[in-house]
Amino acid sequence: MSNPVLVDVTRGGALESRHRGAVAVVDASGAVRFALGDIDAAVYPRSAVKALQALPLIESGAAERFGLTDAEVALACASHSGDDVHVAAAASMLERAGCSPAVLECGAHWPVGAAESRRLAASGRSPGPLHNNCSGKHAGFVCVACALGVDPAGYVGANHPVQREVRAALASMTGETLDADACGIDGCSIPTYRVPLRGLARGFARFGSGEGLDPGRAAAARRIRRAVAAHPAMVAGEGRFDTIVMECLRDRVFCKVGAEGVYCAALPGAGLGVAIKIDDGAARAAEIAMGAVIRRFVSLDEDASAALAAVFEPAITNWNGRRTGDLRPGDAWGMP
Amino acid sequence: MSNPVLVDVTRGGALESRHRGAVAVVDASGAVRFALGDIDAAVYPRSAVKALQALPLIESGAAERFGLTDAEVALACASHSGDDVHVAAAASMLERAGCSPAVLECGAHWPVGAAESRRLAASGRSPGPLHNNCSGKHAGFVCVACALGVDPAGYVGANHPVQREVRAALASMTGETLDADACGIDGCSIPTYRVPLRGLARGFARFGSGEGLDPGRAAAARRIRRAVAAHPAMVAGEGRFDTIVMECLRDRVFCKVGAEGVYCAALPGAGLGVAIKIDDGAARAAEIAMGAVIRRFVSLDEDASAALAAVFEPAITNWNGRRTGDLRPGDAWGMP
Repeated sequence: MSNPVLVDVTRGGALESRHRGAVAVVDASGAVRFALGDIDAAVYPRSAVKALQALPLIESGAAERFGLTDAEVALACASHSGDDVHVAAAASMLERAGCSPAVLECGAHWPVGAAESRRLAASGRSPGPLHNNCSGKHAGFVCVACALGVDPAGYVGANHPVQREVRAALASMTGETLDADACGIDGCSIPTYRVPLRGLARGFARFGSGEGLDPGRAAAARRIRRAVAAHPAMVAGEGRFDTIVMECLRDRVFCKVGAEGVYCAALPGAGLGVAIKIDDGAARAAEIAMGAVIRRFVSLDEDASAALAAVFEPAITNWNGRRTGDLRPGDAWGMP
Repeated sequence: MSNPVLVDVTRGGALESRHRGAVAVVDASGAVRFALGDIDAAVYPRSAVKALQALPLIESGAAERFGLTDAEVALACASHSGDDVHVAAAASMLERAGCSPAVLECGAHWPVGAAESRRLAASGRSPGPLHNNCSGKHAGFVCVACALGVDPAGYVGANHPVQREVRAALASMTGETLDADACGIDGCSIPTYRVPLRGLARGFARFGSGEGLDPGRAAAARRIRRAVAAHPAMVAGEGRFDTIVMECLRDRVFCKVGAEGVYCAALPGAGLGVAIKIDDGAARAAEIAMGAVIRRFVSLDEDASAALAAVFEPAITNWNGRRTGDLRPGDAWGMP
């Protein structure tokens, strides 16, 4: 059985491409409120679970001990564009913990934001690990190690105390077991564990509502959500979906993209969590699917609808600015 | 009926993503030699047919009259990376026809090659239409207009004499009718007509073998193939699939990528043409599928196999250079 077509890509009025995938919208008890496709299939959540991976940063006392700002806590959940503001915040987190950027084990790459990448090149500099889109998450891991009183070296390893904390948080939030044989290596070298979409969605329902969590964890989740809602530009960057959506909707939606077409979200008002996987890994399709979920479960006034139209159902324009087609939810959504 | 999975994307030994699509391998008579998925579905060929769109450049006498070099003819078939050598060749083509870059109607964008884009930014310059990946094709269109004695202005319009020539060449080569209602607008503003994969493949079988073509057209196709085989770096750029494959196999394979997961090729030795469309539009999958076709129908010695392994079945590595997964042909290919 193949998953349904979630997203249509049109050109000249005809279908040019299509994206299949699965969507789970689940409450904190695990009850399914909406589903398309196979939500029991396990997927690598990649960067979509950075907010859950950041729970130990709060729970270990690291954030408080090192006096992390809300912007820095938001960066710990980020796949950032590598702009100066992101790089500076990651450096600051490390400095607060008494570490240098040399401790980072994420690897270096040119900023994922094309404009940010060109700005760096124009300045005559080269990228370092601080420019890695995961540098905030990694700086957070280093803070956790320091707060736990363990050597940060090797903190990306599955058996390092930091990753054990991270794995325990993920397992507990999703209600799933994360076995070694479900483990892959992420782009930034940390373990990524396959989890059924249904469990991922449940984890985010609990992250958003606090339902079923002990008070300490519920407070940690609240702290993270508040930090991100206050600083949506730290989580992604200028012109990117997560930043645009959360700048508009603030604490009404927490959403986070992952590589290979994964998207997770918490919709606290509805008490729901969302997990999406596009079969082919396309980010553009995951965004359209997330937009369709938000429109279905979050009531948007006219201003918000207008502000988000450009990312929820974007026109495809060419190099002369001419509209050549559209990206839009497929028939499977049953939208009007 | 959904198309079969053509490409698997793995991580940690498990399937992370998958790409569906269709493949047609056809001879010059239109007989199907190999097919996966629905090859009668019409697709926008986008840039994959630039070599066929360049036939009027030769047939109109423009290439000869303006003394175009082989490198410039190759650039007319290119989706180039926007390196200095590409920009210079496009400017030279226009100069030979007595035109300035201002005549180009493709629009400007930062070079598609990330390294080329950063080099341009580092030099303090901004991109112009010459950096557009289609600038060679457009410079070729301008040359055709000049050779025909018509005003180049508006040469991107479907009813301009240049596009009428281009459409006639495409219709004749593919054996398909290209109606106005099958027309979309391409990224560079020229018309793109939906054509069944089977017809596209047939067009490239004829382009590669000359079979069934009048002598003038067969010679034009030969001229283009020879130019590209001599200058594979003009067609794409450093590190890109088309350039790597043709630098290795030269005139044994002509291949050309298009946007949205389209790929076309001529395999002259086998008398075959190839057309591929990945349902979701992913370029990475179209490359793997093209690699699988080439391995099936072109005999490769050990050196060629070794040289092409990195693009035919590439490892996915992370920012620390660690192998995290693979891209490979799916079970549908029945490969060992």
